[in-house]
Amino acid sequence: MYKKLKQSLYILLSPAKGNRVWDNILDYFLVILISLNVAAVILETVNSIYAVYAVYFKNFERVSVHIFTVEYVLRVWVCTCDEKYKHPVWGRLRYMFSLGALIDLLAFLPFYLPFTSVDWRHLRILRLFMFVRIFKLGRYLSAKELIANVFSSKREELILCLAITVSLIVAASGFVYFAENSAQPEKFSSIPATMWWGVTTLTTVGYGDIYPITLTGKILTSIISILGIGVFALPAGILASGFSEELQKRKHKHGTTCPNCGREIDTQHITHLS
Amino acid sequence: MYKKLKQSLYILLSPAKGNRVWDNILDYFLVILISLNVAAVILETVNSIYAVYAVYFKNFERVSVHIFTVEYVLRVWVCTCDEKYKHPVWGRLRYMFSLGALIDLLAFLPFYLPFTSVDWRHLRILRLFMFVRIFKLGRYLSAKELIANVFSSKREELILCLAITVSLIVAASGFVYFAENSAQPEKFSSIPATMWWGVTTLTTVGYGDIYPITLTGKILTSIISILGIGVFALPAGILASGFSEELQKRKHKHGTTCPNCGREIDTQHITHLS
Amino acid sequence: MYKKLKQSLYILLSPAKGNRVWDNILDYFLVILISLNVAAVILETVNSIYAVYAVYFKNFERVSVHIFTVEYVLRVWVCTCDEKYKHPVWGRLRYMFSLGALIDLLAFLPFYLPFTSVDWRHLRILRLFMFVRIFKLGRYLSAKELIANVFSSKREELILCLAITVSLIVAASGFVYFAENSAQPEKFSSIPATMWWGVTTLTTVGYGDIYPITLTGKILTSIISILGIGVFALPAGILASGFSEELQKRKHKHGTTCPNCGREIDTQHITHLS
Amino acid sequence: MYKKLKQSLYILLSPAKGNRVWDNILDYFLVILISLNVAAVILETVNSIYAVYAVYFKNFERVSVHIFTVEYVLRVWVCTCDEKYKHPVWGRLRYMFSLGALIDLLAFLPFYLPFTSVDWRHLRILRLFMFVRIFKLGRYLSAKELIANVFSSKREELILCLAITVSLIVAASGFVYFAENSAQPEKFSSIPATMWWGVTTLTTVGYGDIYPITLTGKILTSIISILGIGVFALPAGILASGFSEELQKRKHKHGTTCPNCGREIDTQHITHLS
Repeated sequence: MYKKLKQSLYILLSPAKGNRVWDNILDYFLVILISLNVAAVILETVNSIYAVYAVYFKNFERVSVHIFTVEYVLRVWVCTCDEKYKHPVWGRLRYMFSLGALIDLLAFLPFYLPFTSVDWRHLRILRLFMFVRIFKLGRYLSAKELIANVFSSKREELILCLAITVSLIVAASGFVYFAENSAQPEKFSSIPATMWWGVTTLTTVGYGDIYPITLTGKILTSIISILGIGVFALPAGILASGFSEELQKRKHKHGTTCPNCGREIDTQHITHLS
Repeated sequence: MYKKLKQSLYILLSPAKGNRVWDNILDYFLVILISLNVAAVILETVNSIYAVYAVYFKNFERVSVHIFTVEYVLRVWVCTCDEKYKHPVWGRLRYMFSLGALIDLLAFLPFYLPFTSVDWRHLRILRLFMFVRIFKLGRYLSAKELIANVFSSKREELILCLAITVSLIVAASGFVYFAENSAQPEKFSSIPATMWWGVTTLTTVGYGDIYPITLTGKILTSIISILGIGVFALPAGILASGFSEELQKRKHKHGTTCPNCGREIDTQHITHLS
Repeated sequence: MYKKLKQSLYILLSPAKGNRVWDNILDYFLVILISLNVAAVILETVNSIYAVYAVYFKNFERVSVHIFTVEYVLRVWVCTCDEKYKHPVWGRLRYMFSLGALIDLLAFLPFYLPFTSVDWRHLRILRLFMFVRIFKLGRYLSAKELIANVFSSKREELILCLAITVSLIVAASGFVYFAENSAQPEKFSSIPATMWWGVTTLTTVGYGDIYPITLTGKILTSIISILGIGVFALPAGILASGFSEELQKRKHKHGTTCPNCGREIDTQHITHLS
Repeated sequence: MYKKLKQSLYILLSPAKGNRVWDNILDYFLVILISLNVAAVILETVNSIYAVYAVYFKNFERVSVHIFTVEYVLRVWVCTCDEKYKHPVWGRLRYMFSLGALIDLLAFLPFYLPFTSVDWRHLRILRLFMFVRIFKLGRYLSAKELIANVFSSKREELILCLAITVSLIVAASGFVYFAENSAQPEKFSSIPATMWWGVTTLTTVGYGDIYPITLTGKILTSIISILGIGVFALPAGILASGFSEELQKRKHKHGTTCPNCGREIDTQHITHLS
């Protein structure tokens, strides 16, 4: 009876496991509760709203936190049904230190901590991370998997892109610092200060709070920002080829028979052909 | 006779149905009328122009509205020729609530409403939506279909991109709000206010009306805006693979014979091969 | 003799026709002369430079104009060697009204016009167009052809992209005008004035001279600028698939033999396979 | 003995040659030393930090410079083990003038130069170039090779992109100069000054320090910045097709058997097929 209850709860709480009515109801309930919590965190910071509805915000938070606590405790209890976390003690501990469980924990833990002198509002922002859970729910699974696979198969190239971007920012900031420092000693006061200029320029944000005024600085900026076009084009090109590849792989997963002789073809061979 | 007239009108009013001379004349007439109406809505708002030509604008609007009204009534009358809207009452009602017919309605309905105290100019802007009708006309059909197919086949991935973008904006705004709020309490007054910063930063618009000045805020902004490069690269990559796929599908629609044995090959099989 | 001279001159003046030494010398001479002219047009506008070197600029312009005039006259004379412009009168006229010849003409015509009251400087800027001629010279021919082919095969899709971008700008400007007009009547004075905001926002330039301050305006801007990401992703995706296609076509131009049976394969069939 | 020591040192100093423990330790040591040097160059420019830790910076620089000097001398000594630099004199000289060795030299040479009246800080910035060495170390080799191959195979197209971008900036600046010069004679004082506007607009940085205010200038800017979307889309498309091609080439390198008859297929043929 205890085992069966645990098993049922485990299936109920795993979004991808069953497609029964209860699953869907629980899913929708969680999506709505998480969305409302995220909205609450956002709206609480608007003084004019908080001044009027403070009591509602507090009550809603209290109720939500209790629901999330119960859910978390239940998840830790039933996680041993999963092969990965089978051991009653170590399995549960490993589950508790998994990224997903830690994010779940962030949603309610700050509520229980004794807030005395520390500014507790900084911790409440962590409730925002709950929106990650919405991504884990069961919709658009195929698209999520596709994007995740592309990022994972192109991981090295994307990290290199990031390294190139950061290197460009550092190098550009170094040179522009020496070009601008004497003309604008307050804005381009040091290389780290110039790196703020580097980021806003290479990402083409360009707030306009800091920009070169000397000829050398402007020429360097021109070179850097034209190179910066590549900073956008490179990951776009990498991801584009990644998506093409991933979609070709998916096609090859389906069994295929030779169109000429009807014999089955090992998809491994076909991959070489296309 | 009545039936025949209705049928002829139906064919005349459906741009894709016939390619006769009358069709083209009506098409060009509508394109010009719609373009002039859109231009009129735009130019009316320029006070120096409106002050001089007010009477022309009013007359042109009156004439246009009557033409669009007649066209709308005729379309509702003949829509029963279409299989989808066959029923004389429900078919016509369903046609009237189709997106296309509602946009047509917006073009002239505000003109007939009794404007008393309400600021009617806000409704006249809806005439701008008429330009959507130009897209529905018969040119560049293949390109339109291609783009529409790509968006439809990549719908899930693009919605996920949008969700990731919005989540990044919300998360970034949450953190930057806590970093900047004490330094710039007027500009970063709340998370929703900070989200305006988030949008202008992640989309790299960067007006410069709101930007971080604290070290934490600048570091967070740097991380966010470098991640923001991915926000541009991801949909570009998805659409690129979508266009490649769609063009491959088009090729496969044509019948194909095996290059080896000359027998015809079911394109279904070929799809697996490529 | 006359014919032979004309023929030799024709071959000499057509960059792609011969690869002899004289051709290369003439090519390099023209590239340098054009580059110097473009540089001269640019530097003339710097008052501190022009004040000192005015006489050099004027002399250089005079010499260049005479060279370009002679070259133009010679080109018009020998153009009848080209099959396209065979007729001694109509062929020459058609050549003179070709885009290339008109651009050539712009390089020296303003010099001969009697400048009295008109501000002639506005015409001199047309000399800048000479740089187009550098693109026509013989280097990177394969890359130029590739890019030109992709733009030509994707012409319809790119025009649609442009139409979508312009429509988005117009629609966004219409709505933001009504949202911002009462709050910033000077900046958002009319829809055409707001379209300046629309362009700087959708292209993510964001100078910061004009931006919304009302809540409605900011929400509309957020939607528009997130949609604007697609404005960059769509042409990138179209061009990416265009380049892939074009490169595949190039491969298929080479004759191919079936890897299985050694028979030759019609590339037409192969196209269906890949 | 001497030869063996030289050979061992050569293998030790070439990151890609061996995968022994000592190699990894030396690699990690160099990565950390280079990173710390780059960090030192950056942080030295922050006055508040330099004021306190000047002595540490100076000592760290002295130690680093000695290490890099020893490493450089050793590399020059053992480089003759490489086939490319076999000759004891000319080979060593050719090695010393290779790009990699020159960058190594920049890291310590400024330290030894007698700094008297020249502002030596401008030379110290060259130490920043050391980060290039981190890219040369052995991680992500496959991704680096992929990106390098794509850039090399698409070199011509990318140079054309750059030429188109620069031409657009020059042409746009020429026209906007004539449109804006009379309205803003200080900001749009000459075409070179306007080119600063051109760069910040076409790369969509848009600092907001310089922007058109006349109607003509705004219309020209709108056209240019919409064309500027292509400036981002074109290299993205080129790189996307380059990555797809490169990945297909890699697949074909592996031996392949015909899916129909099981015989081995020369990959050369297959390339034509796909």
